[in-house]
Amino acid sequence: MSISAHLLIGARAVAGTNGTIHGINPANGETLEPAFGGATPDDLEQACALAWSAFDVYRETTLEARAAFLERIAENILAIGDALIVRCMAESGLPRARLEGERGRTVGQLRLFAAVVRAGDFLDARIDPAQPQRQPLARVDLRLRNIPLGPVAVFGASNFPLAFSVGGGDTASALAAGCPVIVKAHSAHPGTSVLVGRAIQQAVADCGLPEGTFSLLFDSGRAIGQALVSDWRIKAVGFTGSRGGGTALMHLAAARHEPIPVYAEMSSINPVLLFPQALATRAEQIGQAFAAALTLGAGQFCTNPGLILAVDGPDLERFIGAAEAALSDVPAATMLTPGIHHSYAGAVQALCTHADVTVEARGQSGAPHQGQAALFSTTAQAFRRRAELQGETFGAASLIVRCPDLETVRQIVEELEGQLTAALHVDESDYEEAAKILPALERRVGRILVNGFGTGVEVGHAMVHGGPFPSTSDGRSTSVGSNAIARFLRPVSYQDVPDVLLPDALKAANPLGLARRLDGSLQAAG
Amino acid sequence: MSISAHLLIGARAVAGTNGTIHGINPANGETLEPAFGGATPDDLEQACALAWSAFDVYRETTLEARAAFLERIAENILAIGDALIVRCMAESGLPRARLEGERGRTVGQLRLFAAVVRAGDFLDARIDPAQPQRQPLARVDLRLRNIPLGPVAVFGASNFPLAFSVGGGDTASALAAGCPVIVKAHSAHPGTSVLVGRAIQQAVADCGLPEGTFSLLFDSGRAIGQALVSDWRIKAVGFTGSRGGGTALMHLAAARHEPIPVYAEMSSINPVLLFPQALATRAEQIGQAFAAALTLGAGQFCTNPGLILAVDGPDLERFIGAAEAALSDVPAATMLTPGIHHSYAGAVQALCTHADVTVEARGQSGAPHQGQAALFSTTAQAFRRRAELQGETFGAASLIVRCPDLETVRQIVEELEGQLTAALHVDESDYEEAAKILPALERRVGRILVNGFGTGVEVGHAMVHGGPFPSTSDGRSTSVGSNAIARFLRPVSYQDVPDVLLPDALKAANPLGLARRLDGSLQAAG
Repeated sequence: MSISAHLLIGARAVAGTNGTIHGINPANGETLEPAFGGATPDDLEQACALAWSAFDVYRETTLEARAAFLERIAENILAIGDALIVRCMAESGLPRARLEGERGRTVGQLRLFAAVVRAGDFLDARIDPAQPQRQPLARVDLRLRNIPLGPVAVFGASNFPLAFSVGGGDTASALAAGCPVIVKAHSAHPGTSVLVGRAIQQAVADCGLPEGTFSLLFDSGRAIGQALVSDWRIKAVGFTGSRGGGTALMHLAAARHEPIPVYAEMSSINPVLLFPQALATRAEQIGQAFAAALTLGAGQFCTNPGLILAVDGPDLERFIGAAEAALSDVPAATMLTPGIHHSYAGAVQALCTHADVTVEARGQSGAPHQGQAALFSTTAQAFRRRAELQGETFGAASLIVRCPDLETVRQIVEELEGQLTAALHVDESDYEEAAKILPALERRVGRILVNGFGTGVEVGHAMVHGGPFPSTSDGRSTSVGSNAIARFLRPVSYQDVPDVLLPDALKAANPLGLARRLDGSLQAAG
Repeated sequence: MSISAHLLIGARAVAGTNGTIHGINPANGETLEPAFGGATPDDLEQACALAWSAFDVYRETTLEARAAFLERIAENILAIGDALIVRCMAESGLPRARLEGERGRTVGQLRLFAAVVRAGDFLDARIDPAQPQRQPLARVDLRLRNIPLGPVAVFGASNFPLAFSVGGGDTASALAAGCPVIVKAHSAHPGTSVLVGRAIQQAVADCGLPEGTFSLLFDSGRAIGQALVSDWRIKAVGFTGSRGGGTALMHLAAARHEPIPVYAEMSSINPVLLFPQALATRAEQIGQAFAAALTLGAGQFCTNPGLILAVDGPDLERFIGAAEAALSDVPAATMLTPGIHHSYAGAVQALCTHADVTVEARGQSGAPHQGQAALFSTTAQAFRRRAELQGETFGAASLIVRCPDLETVRQIVEELEGQLTAALHVDESDYEEAAKILPALERRVGRILVNGFGTGVEVGHAMVHGGPFPSTSDGRSTSVGSNAIARFLRPVSYQDVPDVLLPDALKAANPLGLARRLDGSLQAAG
């Protein structure tokens, strides 16, 4: 399949004229054709106008029509076939198996949201019936449903060119909510983006939806993305990327005449707590598993284990020895972009020469553009004193903090910034000590896991891929799983509205067959 | 009951030393004793430290204990007896019947949230069980519950000295969620505030809760309130007041190192749309009902009908005539504070002399400090051109916009800022035209009502007292009704956590008897 280097503005494919973007193969530095032109302010205006005009129609599509649309997107993405995987490999340096898995996840997310839409629970339909006889005042008839916020701006991520990008979780959940979507493609994978964008654009046409339901823009700098967030027709933002990028969008959104929610998933070091008995019984096993989690996908996961907290001593040395042995077998890996590799190499170099840091292990070295895994250690005292040791190093680097006791581990947890995940490695006799640290962890993270690592984010109903700032901009939300749809909804209440004017979700006859709350109590569907 | 002029910092009553606050009787300008001292930065520090230290304990009280606490607050407020009503009348100028009703509403809200806590649905407990046999990867065990955000700052409102103040909806819903609360009292009713504050402080002691669960501060200026919002231990803000005050807190919260959600209910003109057939059949009846809604409580409701949109013509004149006749019988009314009266009188005067505005009716004049109702009209053209005609006049003033046709009504709705409510007056033959305007209304308001007025906000499960900016800071929320608890919660997910370490809400045996979602599907409680 040929790559058409176009912006997708509603039903049209438009050559961008505002600067040029090229994909670069991170494995060899090769510039990939074709060149993509950036969107102009006029392109942006057209995409926003189309999205706005599509909104009232798209948000009142039937649940079945909207679910079928999401499924059609999934089918159209699969129909691209191997061309998508090949292009994505070239643009990201990620291996085939990983990208085939990620495509499966992307398609699975779209289908999950189709099921969520069909079930209709996201509408949160509620009815408090009138009580004309109530004293001293009659009670009115009050009904509630969620409606979508409006057009949503989605910023594709570098590290998941499929699952957190043009057709990823933000887009799927916003479309499921009933919001038109304008994607600002990540410049590292323009070809992948336009292939997926075409699949969505085609699905819009296949399903007879208003063309403004979806647009895809490229930005050769930052101005178009910023103008997108500032446009009055945009009512929410989804973003996955750096802390700097996310906080910049937060500030733009807060400075608007009408501030809007930003759901930015940004930065996390995902502490791993190794408890004494777990280390005593299976330090080697945990060390091996850690090395595997650390280096998965060249460490380029938001949930990569970047911090190890443990009581210093011989069992921790056994863990380090096992991790060191495992890491020595791990080849260096191509990173997503030359820029990401450059940042990683610089951060690792700074840690290697840091007065308070010891290099415990390295992965194999490789080509100059490849990331070499690194395991460091420091003392609790140094870690608590040195802010530069507490930030995220995006890639396969992790820092062990040697603590004198578990109380110090707890104190460090109390001082951590917000995180996506925390992992506890415990045996049964550790539970009592673990329980003392759990409250502090709950206050700081979105997901707590036991005897595992945070990489591998299940797409389900009970998943929270989120957490307090700065892991995300809004700890009340998740960007993965069915609950992600809630980010793009708000409630509207209808008082004494005649049945014929009520939305179907709230009509007396319940034509959608929804489970609805009657005076607060959930009634079965149907 | 004597009024103790103290800050309440946890279990202590402390004399404030940072400036002086006096209640003023708005009916006669009399300064009310005693004088209240403002909180110092050190008082604030102590309140925040206590709230933070209380959080982990308070948030893990049993559902029954937390519900009993809310009910105890209600009992303690009632136990103040008539002293509360008498003091509140003196500080607010509101009549006895209104304040007795508001006390009933306040107590009712606390009891509603007790029931919400007992039911436990707010925890949103979810379980996606492990699937060890799943291919290609085993599925982990994933469970989710909501936890409270942390200590909440509540700013009392001037216009509901009981129901939206120290023990009002923000406090009740935050405490129900499991958040300690620090209230910054409204300076217009310090005596009322400390009486209610004492009732809550006593309930904390009665129930054996950590003292930091509740504190009450006075602020002789703005610095303490601002420092409260900026304190790192505060994790959310509830506010009811002016647009200027609310947006200032929004900017403070967004500028924090860790931005936090602000739930500010600010400003709304609550458009009323009069449709042709409704006017034709019952213009006089609607005009009378409108005059009553406009002047209820001296017009000092967030949901006061400040804007009338209708097609110009003889039927609209009949509406105006009836409203004029009704208003001429309405006595001037004491407003909440001299400052509010001053602002109202100035805004009315500006409209009276505005070149594009006609004075259609006035209420009776009264004493110099009393608000005199006012009904104005203008043309659609002038309204759309003049921003000064589109803002809120807090008090019993309303503006009729004479529109040439319903399409102009729809266009004006499209140009309105976000609103708490919109009311449609329709007969059956108006439904078709009303349906054309409903989508635009849904996008702009939190509550749509038919053949009524927005005053009178039912406290139920289907209520939305909220709406897009600037009616509130966050259109995804409601500050009235059971859903208000959602503002102070965030989800945490637990992966492969051993049963003994799981919170009760998620344990296998379901000891709380919750309705929980199993793989996304709600299972009956028990």
